[in-house]
Amino acid sequence: MQEYDVVVIGAGPAGLSAAIYAARRALNTLILESGVAGGQMAATNEIENYPGVEKVGGMALGERMAKQADRFGAELKYETVNALQKKDDGSFVVRTESAEYHCYGVVIATGAAHRKLGAKGEDAFAGKGVSYCATCDALFFRGKEVAVVGGGNSALSAALYLIDVCSRVHIVHRRDEFRGEERLGGELAAKQNVAIHWDSVLEEVRGKDSVSSMVLKNVKTNELSEIAVSGVFIYVGVVPTAKLAQDAGVELDQYGFVKVGEDQQTCCAGVFAAGDVTGGVLQVAVAVGEGTIAGINVGTFVKNKKKELKAE
Amino acid sequence: MQEYDVVVIGAGPAGLSAAIYAARRALNTLILESGVAGGQMAATNEIENYPGVEKVGGMALGERMAKQADRFGAELKYETVNALQKKDDGSFVVRTESAEYHCYGVVIATGAAHRKLGAKGEDAFAGKGVSYCATCDALFFRGKEVAVVGGGNSALSAALYLIDVCSRVHIVHRRDEFRGEERLGGELAAKQNVAIHWDSVLEEVRGKDSVSSMVLKNVKTNELSEIAVSGVFIYVGVVPTAKLAQDAGVELDQYGFVKVGEDQQTCCAGVFAAGDVTGGVLQVAVAVGEGTIAGINVGTFVKNKKKELKAE
Repeated sequence: MQEYDVVVIGAGPAGLSAAIYAARRALNTLILESGVAGGQMAATNEIENYPGVEKVGGMALGERMAKQADRFGAELKYETVNALQKKDDGSFVVRTESAEYHCYGVVIATGAAHRKLGAKGEDAFAGKGVSYCATCDALFFRGKEVAVVGGGNSALSAALYLIDVCSRVHIVHRRDEFRGEERLGGELAAKQNVAIHWDSVLEEVRGKDSVSSMVLKNVKTNELSEIAVSGVFIYVGVVPTAKLAQDAGVELDQYGFVKVGEDQQTCCAGVFAAGDVTGGVLQVAVAVGEGTIAGINVGTFVKNKKKELKAE
Repeated sequence: MQEYDVVVIGAGPAGLSAAIYAARRALNTLILESGVAGGQMAATNEIENYPGVEKVGGMALGERMAKQADRFGAELKYETVNALQKKDDGSFVVRTESAEYHCYGVVIATGAAHRKLGAKGEDAFAGKGVSYCATCDALFFRGKEVAVVGGGNSALSAALYLIDVCSRVHIVHRRDEFRGEERLGGELAAKQNVAIHWDSVLEEVRGKDSVSSMVLKNVKTNELSEIAVSGVFIYVGVVPTAKLAQDAGVELDQYGFVKVGEDQQTCCAGVFAAGDVTGGVLQVAVAVGEGTIAGINVGTFVKNKKKELKAE
């Protein structure tokens, strides 16, 4: 079993920020990532709203953060974590498919996955007109016609966000009324450049190099229609990647996100969490801020814990 | 009176992040700054712990964020705000020494000033060995001898932070016991490379291009002593710049920081706050995260408010 002070699970912006701060406290820090450095951010073509960085690919920004963590001494391994277990003395064992790590503090930064619809063409056009984040990508569709799929608060907010920059916003919702607040729905209904397609589901996204149209099916009549759009924003919820946390006994909120205090600590002493897995605003800047707080506080926790165990 | 949707007070990392996000919502956004873009961050020689940016001068990082806000349409004016006033209809008037601005949402990002000691040489060597932030600057003193002035929790935490990277840490405290937690004080006392100077105040910081020594005075004996150090960290508290907020009726906490909810809104509807003025961890990454949340939420507030006023 290999020894570390801190293990950070997930190398998205939250995890890498936590690792930067933990490593700067001279703690022996390991980051475990099952995908690529940058996490979900790495799937974003271009990020232009991370303060201080004018324009950058998500992949490149992830690599920069990883390099920074490395420079301060944090180690990054590409392994999938299968289990997190608390020992009787309050320290932890983190198990991956190929190794076991012993440590005194953990940061869970496993993120959230945008829920996919499963429509034809959805995966093929991801990042080429299919987006899961209006705040991130709206400006790429300035003056163009787009669609939002979904009827919850986040779909309606996304549509209202898009209206300010796009020529027309189609809302595709499978029911005949929104799940989201009446206030938001009413606001949308009053807009000139909004078309609401009730009782409709997205069947297919079509295009060549990028999205050029969508095919909708009316669930009551089974009628199909094709509408020309440059972008399709899918807002059918996010799924926090919180199974690992839950299995370890960490408390989740009603939506399945990890519950944390102001110090980013979970209900389990020594286990901190940051970024999308904790819910809230799903933006790189926010994940970085939370990761920073988690990194500083897990550092303090580990220093005290090791002293306590030594004294016993 | 000039019209804006959102006025952001303060162009540090929190204010600029809020402005970036408000402007991206197509809101007419004004930033008012009494000093320089970047705020207190601009006074830091080198920042190496802002995730995603390898190494950058604080001034340069401030300019980058300001340029980004400008690119999204936010306007930055160098004026000092004298008063913030809520009108009967819930909108706001912001008064500077030279103009009046009407708006529907406000973000207070006025920061906090590190409390100065007033010792001789303190100002002259600021950024040249005199620092107010161990987390920011510790690594510049790797292997060197430094001093921390203060006896509260933040001074002790700073000293513990510095011990890991510096060869020796002197703690200078005016009393014969620490104000900070016994746990922290005990931990410090047990270290080999710590020298605690009780009943002592910093009289003078000396050096040529950078700090080379400090002069201490024992407050009981009036004896003076000179100790060779490369760095002096002054931790005698921060002073939130919250007078403007307080005068506007915004609630402060017991330490004088602006109280905010998870959405960064203050007790006063439409007035948001972010960054150091709200207390917590005083790091650029955290200010940016809070500013982002404030920018998104002030945007939503203003959109609803304008609609409400129009409907009346």
